[in-house]
Amino acid sequence: MIMKRALVTGGAGFLGSHLCRRLLADGFAVTALDNLYTGSRRNVEDLLDNRCFSFIEGDVIDFSTEEMFDEIYNLACPASPVHYQARPIFTTRTSVIGTMNMLELAKRCGAKMLHCSTSEIYGDPLVHPQQEKYWGNVNTIGIRSCYDEGKRCAETLCADYIREFDTDVRMVRIFNTYGPAMHPQDGRVISNFIMQALNNEDITVFGDGSQTRSFQYCDDLIEAFRRYMELPVERIREFFKEKGLGAPAINTGNPGEYTIRELAEETLRQIPESKSKLIEKPLPSDDPKRRKPDITLAKELLGWEPKVPLQEGLAKTIAYFRTR
Amino acid sequence: MIMKRALVTGGAGFLGSHLCRRLLADGFAVTALDNLYTGSRRNVEDLLDNRCFSFIEGDVIDFSTEEMFDEIYNLACPASPVHYQARPIFTTRTSVIGTMNMLELAKRCGAKMLHCSTSEIYGDPLVHPQQEKYWGNVNTIGIRSCYDEGKRCAETLCADYIREFDTDVRMVRIFNTYGPAMHPQDGRVISNFIMQALNNEDITVFGDGSQTRSFQYCDDLIEAFRRYMELPVERIREFFKEKGLGAPAINTGNPGEYTIRELAEETLRQIPESKSKLIEKPLPSDDPKRRKPDITLAKELLGWEPKVPLQEGLAKTIAYFRTR
Repeated sequence: MIMKRALVTGGAGFLGSHLCRRLLADGFAVTALDNLYTGSRRNVEDLLDNRCFSFIEGDVIDFSTEEMFDEIYNLACPASPVHYQARPIFTTRTSVIGTMNMLELAKRCGAKMLHCSTSEIYGDPLVHPQQEKYWGNVNTIGIRSCYDEGKRCAETLCADYIREFDTDVRMVRIFNTYGPAMHPQDGRVISNFIMQALNNEDITVFGDGSQTRSFQYCDDLIEAFRRYMELPVERIREFFKEKGLGAPAINTGNPGEYTIRELAEETLRQIPESKSKLIEKPLPSDDPKRRKPDITLAKELLGWEPKVPLQEGLAKTIAYFRTR
Repeated sequence: MIMKRALVTGGAGFLGSHLCRRLLADGFAVTALDNLYTGSRRNVEDLLDNRCFSFIEGDVIDFSTEEMFDEIYNLACPASPVHYQARPIFTTRTSVIGTMNMLELAKRCGAKMLHCSTSEIYGDPLVHPQQEKYWGNVNTIGIRSCYDEGKRCAETLCADYIREFDTDVRMVRIFNTYGPAMHPQDGRVISNFIMQALNNEDITVFGDGSQTRSFQYCDDLIEAFRRYMELPVERIREFFKEKGLGAPAINTGNPGEYTIRELAEETLRQIPESKSKLIEKPLPSDDPKRRKPDITLAKELLGWEPKVPLQEGLAKTIAYFRTR
C-alpha cells in the first residue's frame, strides 16, 4: 500500500505539531515545513526519528519542491498579536504570498488543501455569534491589520483558485484555540494565566474580568481538520452552493463562553500550590471584543462539535506547561 | 536646475496618462510603467517624443530598476469589474505584490509615494456617505473580492511601511472617476452610455434608473493628487494623528449625486444625432450599491474640492470618444 503524503506548513508550531502527530497516526507520510519564527523544533523533536516524518526548516513564502503531496495543510503564520505586530509586513507576506505559493503547489500536485483562516477576519464583529456569511468589520490601516487583512486576502486567493483552476481548497476559520505546545510567551490569556500562576506572579485580569471568551481545545480542532479533508470535494461544493456561500469556509471553535475571571479562577484551582493573586488592570485600547463562533455549518457538514470541556483541556495544558 | 523624477505605475492607463501630462507640465521628468493589460500605448503616444518622458512596458509586480525617483505614483491595477474579474488572481497580485514592490522602491529611494486606493475598500457600505474612519463591508470570498481585498491589503502594507520604515506614503481612496482616455469597454456606466449613444444602440438602464451614482471628472482627481504630494510629510502626519486615523488615507470623489436615468438623458442630450433609446434591464445581483464620498478631510487638508460639473466633464468625454 502506498502511503498518502501530507505537507503541513507551520508544522513545528502549536497546532501544526498536533496535526503532524495526528496525520502520522492516521497513516500519512508527513513533511513539516516551518521557519521557526514562532514554531519550535522542540514541538516535533520526538517525531524526528519516525521514518514517516520529515522536517524542513524553511519559509512558506519561498518554499519550493519537486515532491508530490496528496494533502496540504496551510497553517504557517504568526497568529498572536505580540508576534505578528513585531513583524507586520512579514506577517502579511506570509499570509498572502505564502498562501499563494501553497495554492500553486496544490494546483501542480492536484492536492487537496486545507487553508487555516481565522475568526480575526470578522474583526470587531457587529453581529453575535458570527456566521460564515458575515462579512466582518475590519480596519485596513490599524496595528492588527497585518494579520486580519492578510488573512482576508488569503481567503480571497483560495476562493479564486477554486473558481479559476478548480483547485480543491477547504478553509477553516479558527476561533481561539489552546492546548499543549502553545507558545508560553504568545501573550494570549490562557498561556498568560498558566505561566503567571506557575511562576507565582500576579494574574492580570484586564478590566473587571467580566468580558467573555470562547476557548477551543486543540484536539477538537484537529478532529475538524481531518473530517473536513476526508469529505469528497463534490459534497463540499454542493453544501456551500446550497448555503449560498461563495467558497467553502467554515467556522471551527467552541461556542461555550467563559468570563476571563472564571478562567483565572479555574486556573488557580488547578494550580493549588500557586501563590498568585488576581489583580485588575485597565483594558488595552485594541483589546479584541467578544467573538463567538456559530458552528452550525461545521456540525451539519462534518458531524462535528467540540468535545473537550475547558476544565479537562486546561488540566492537559497546565500539565504541559509544568514540564517546561 | 535638476528636474524632479516621477514614476507613474499604470502610466498608460486612463488616470495614469492624465497624471503623466500633468507632471510633465509641472516640470517633472516622468517615467510611465504599464503592462498594457488595460492601459494603451495610444494614451501616451503624443508624449513619446518628449525627452522628459519615458515609457516602460513592464509589470509593477516584478519591475526593478537602479534609477532614483523623487515621487512614485502607484496607479497600476485593473479597476473595472469586467477586467479584474477576467483575471482575479493577477489582480490581487498586482495590488498586493505590486504595491509592496513600489513601497520597497520608495524606501530605497527615500521617495514620496502616492498610493491609489479605492472606494471599493468600503465594499457595500452600511453608512452613507462614507468617511475615512469607516471600516467597510466587504465579502472576502466573492467575485469582486480580488479587487476589494487586494486593495484593502495594499492599504495595510502602506500603513505598515509608514510605521516600520517611516516611508512617506500618502493614500487616496478614489471614488467613481470618468473622462477622456477611459477604456471604451471597461463596462462602466459613463463609457457604456456614451458608446451606446454613439453607436445608436439601446442605452441599457439597469433597474428603473433611479439609483444614484457620484461621478468625479479626472482633472479634479489629478489636482487632488498633486496637492497631496506637495504637502510636507510632517503636516500630513500631524493631520491624521489629530483625526485619530492610523494612516494617511483620504477620500477623493465628487459628492454630487445623479440618478442613472439623469446620466442617460444628459448623454443623449449631448449626442443629439443618436438614434438610441433608453431600455430597462433587471439589476445584476452584484451591482455595486450607492457610494458617496465624504470629502471633508480632503477639503480641510488639501483645500480641494471637485470643480468640473458633470455636464462639462461629459462634453469633454464625449468629444474624446467621438475621435475614436
